[in-house]
Amino acid sequence: MISVDEATRQVLATARPLPPETVPLPQAVGRVLLEALHADRDFPPFHRVAMDGIALSFEAVAAGQATFPIAATQLAGMPPQALLDAQTAVEIMTGAALPPGTDTVVRYEDLEFHEVNGQRIAAVRVPPPVAGHNVHRQASDREQGALLLPAGIRLSPAEIAVAATIGAATLQVARQLRVAVVSTGDELVELTETPLPHQIRRSNAYMVQAALQQAGVQSEIFHFNDDQEALRQGLPPLLAAYDALVLSGGVSKGQADFLPAMLRELGVSQIFHEVHQRPGKPFWFGEKAGGAVVFALPGNPVSTFVNFYQYVLPWLRRCEQPHSKLPRPTALLATDFSFAPRIAYFLPVRLELSPYGHLLAHPQKSGGSGDLASLLQCDAFLRLPAEPTDFKAGDAFPLVRFR
Amino acid sequence: MISVDEATRQVLATARPLPPETVPLPQAVGRVLLEALHADRDFPPFHRVAMDGIALSFEAVAAGQATFPIAATQLAGMPPQALLDAQTAVEIMTGAALPPGTDTVVRYEDLEFHEVNGQRIAAVRVPPPVAGHNVHRQASDREQGALLLPAGIRLSPAEIAVAATIGAATLQVARQLRVAVVSTGDELVELTETPLPHQIRRSNAYMVQAALQQAGVQSEIFHFNDDQEALRQGLPPLLAAYDALVLSGGVSKGQADFLPAMLRELGVSQIFHEVHQRPGKPFWFGEKAGGAVVFALPGNPVSTFVNFYQYVLPWLRRCEQPHSKLPRPTALLATDFSFAPRIAYFLPVRLELSPYGHLLAHPQKSGGSGDLASLLQCDAFLRLPAEPTDFKAGDAFPLVRFR
Repeated sequence: MISVDEATRQVLATARPLPPETVPLPQAVGRVLLEALHADRDFPPFHRVAMDGIALSFEAVAAGQATFPIAATQLAGMPPQALLDAQTAVEIMTGAALPPGTDTVVRYEDLEFHEVNGQRIAAVRVPPPVAGHNVHRQASDREQGALLLPAGIRLSPAEIAVAATIGAATLQVARQLRVAVVSTGDELVELTETPLPHQIRRSNAYMVQAALQQAGVQSEIFHFNDDQEALRQGLPPLLAAYDALVLSGGVSKGQADFLPAMLRELGVSQIFHEVHQRPGKPFWFGEKAGGAVVFALPGNPVSTFVNFYQYVLPWLRRCEQPHSKLPRPTALLATDFSFAPRIAYFLPVRLELSPYGHLLAHPQKSGGSGDLASLLQCDAFLRLPAEPTDFKAGDAFPLVRFR
Repeated sequence: MISVDEATRQVLATARPLPPETVPLPQAVGRVLLEALHADRDFPPFHRVAMDGIALSFEAVAAGQATFPIAATQLAGMPPQALLDAQTAVEIMTGAALPPGTDTVVRYEDLEFHEVNGQRIAAVRVPPPVAGHNVHRQASDREQGALLLPAGIRLSPAEIAVAATIGAATLQVARQLRVAVVSTGDELVELTETPLPHQIRRSNAYMVQAALQQAGVQSEIFHFNDDQEALRQGLPPLLAAYDALVLSGGVSKGQADFLPAMLRELGVSQIFHEVHQRPGKPFWFGEKAGGAVVFALPGNPVSTFVNFYQYVLPWLRRCEQPHSKLPRPTALLATDFSFAPRIAYFLPVRLELSPYGHLLAHPQKSGGSGDLASLLQCDAFLRLPAEPTDFKAGDAFPLVRFR
């Protein structure tokens, strides 16, 4: 039986890069950029006025001049007005291009205005300390041609704004992953049906679909009873059409657990079966050449949940961003905790960000891998190693977060 | 001029609870539940077999019996088979309902099987330690009628799964917020246009729309030039139709900054104008009775960004979840930092989760509130108070996170 680390490594090794597709800018948020974007102009593209006030020549102020007749007014968006007489000033607004002949802006707060014979005059109360004051100099942030957004990054609102600034109305992004969620199990009825006393309603497929949706991945749900013939007919089209199948149930040691054999029969090569962990040990993982990878997760709801976040989500992320390091968050155990079986344990925890910036993990009670309701009080699992069996408050462990 | 804390308090005070709407379960992830959901049955609804193996009477094992003829086989989803003879056992699979007459399950790993005259017989290699072993007892997680999901919570995959389990095919959730993003400014051209040397392309509206989308809020973008008549005609329908307007630009001291007066003229009561912070000081905030609240943000891109995450996003969250505490995350300054002006400063930072579970904030260089590209290297702002002016590595401050 392999370890969690080895299973994770083998899962990630099957990730395949996604081809590009073109989408309009407003639809690109959250997607992965597959082209490099460069500055089409300097950033800022001109000496940009950073405060409302007057633009003048610093030399005149330095020479002791304190009052400046207003020669012109320039709002943002107007072509710059050249200052012909260095003893005057241009009244000017934030966002405007600095007028030729000026190099400095004095803001309204540091000015007083009066009028003489209909001529508006600004008196400088607080002289600017240096030339260039309140001017956001052309190219001071980025030069024309500079790389702004490299291929491979995920697009957040800041990147969307930068792309808009350079006129990228459409973007090349990684195609969205296609995932089929497959539930099996004769004990499961549809959520609109009334279960018989020995039946329960289907929930894992909805949980997996919701988790995929939160990860920005669209999916479709398929259900098969524990009927080998239906699966033999139904799975091949899914293996051909989707990037990944996420199954739950049918992979333990039970008599109805024929999925591993069935999947091998359908040409899905087994990569591993069973991981040295609790819950979620009977996880089966395989790949069809030229087709989908198959995550066949054990059907107990907490097992399905643990394995989705430990294996499926990192695989999706690796497909989207093959060259990015995956985050490896940790948290501190908030109280001492003991777990006797010598097997990696995914401890359900509630997280708290302490006032001192520590991420604390509080262990929560759980009725085991069937106790779906226990997840309602939890935010994450803390992954405790197989050894030792006694864990101390304050120790840091890998965190598998689902909220 | 009011403080950031006071401005935040006044913004949140205008949040209005949202009415319910009904959505199908798969569309409810990320939404806020507005009804309480109770367990329709016990959790689990029956004594649920937790391992593949045999179900038997613990008393027989305790009395020394080591071999058990298999009287029946029961897969998950089959009605339970009553065990009539306590000296025999039922071969049984995970998820099945425990047969009457049995109380304990021995898993396959602890059994050996042989056959005598066509009768399958299980030999118990490792006796169960207690009665009830490997049985997930009816109602042990939750009892019928128990509150599972209270009104007011946000639905994550775990809640979706629990809702599926109790057959909630549709859910009452808070209606989605309706937000109009309004950009103003004559210097701005559409992103498909080629700007003149003194013009730039519109980016704030796309940034705000992307940030809203990441928060699960749909929005529409409207642009007005700095044309008072166009705004006088165009804003009233938006004030009537939307929950909130997010404007950027037109609120500073400049001659084209007529928005505050215009908004008051249109019946939007000013709640405050200007906050003692950098960047983003000229923020104007108001509310129209019976209509939208108006966030008129300063137009420099970093100012827009800071104020969106400090004020707009918490307001959206408070509308969706009026009774929930807003998160107040903090992070530790990673290096000493000085900021001389005695004004609250939103310091751009890159975040790092240390191996010891500390969230560290590394200050990043920024060319000021116009330096949009500087956001690409940042994950958040650390909110430093107006006093003191020298901040020490390791001190914790409020965190405004945008990535």
